[in-house]
Amino acid sequence: MNPESFQNKPSRETLPGMTGRFLHGEHHSLAYWEGKAGTLLPVHQHMHEQMTYILSGTLEMELDGVKHVLNAHDVLLIPPHTPHGGKVITDCRLIDSFSPVREDYK
Amino acid sequence: MNPESFQNKPSRETLPGMTGRFLHGEHHSLAYWEGKAGTLLPVHQHMHEQMTYILSGTLEMELDGVKHVLNAHDVLLIPPHTPHGGKVITDCRLIDSFSPVREDYK
Repeated sequence: MNPESFQNKPSRETLPGMTGRFLHGEHHSLAYWEGKAGTLLPVHQHMHEQMTYILSGTLEMELDGVKHVLNAHDVLLIPPHTPHGGKVITDCRLIDSFSPVREDYK
Repeated sequence: MNPESFQNKPSRETLPGMTGRFLHGEHHSLAYWEGKAGTLLPVHQHMHEQMTYILSGTLEMELDGVKHVLNAHDVLLIPPHTPHGGKVITDCRLIDSFSPVREDYK
């Protein structure tokens, strides 16, 4: 397996049903997530700009009070300080990018 | 199709065999690329930090003179101002994140 694979990075279950692996640079972070169907992502906000790209499965995201149903190849921009949360509809895999770096995920 | 799909964003063939679609925020950009086997990506560098995540296919990336063969789920961090280039070994699909924003891709 390539040393650069996400699979070789430690995983963290940030909440039950949501497991992430992370790559951090100086200016931004990339996260790979696996979510289990039924997992609720409580509404929260942060100073980091976020983009969510769906690899597989279905994720319902609520952004600033508006619900978006996201499937493979959908991408959502979450501006800084914008309330967002969600629900994993079917088992899903997704990529999040964040800028600046998610120091709290280090 | 979801309005947030990459498929709904205009595509640009930045060089023959390499087609991208882009999402830009304030702090970073996300790009979705489709590359055709045999396409050469000339060595170049930029002030943007880059992370390359492979969705499918095989891409050989040369980073600061070292070659990395990347397959699905591999991810490579390219620091700012670091020479990089590559060769599309098999038809591939990949995500690049950049920070700061790639104004030249707007």
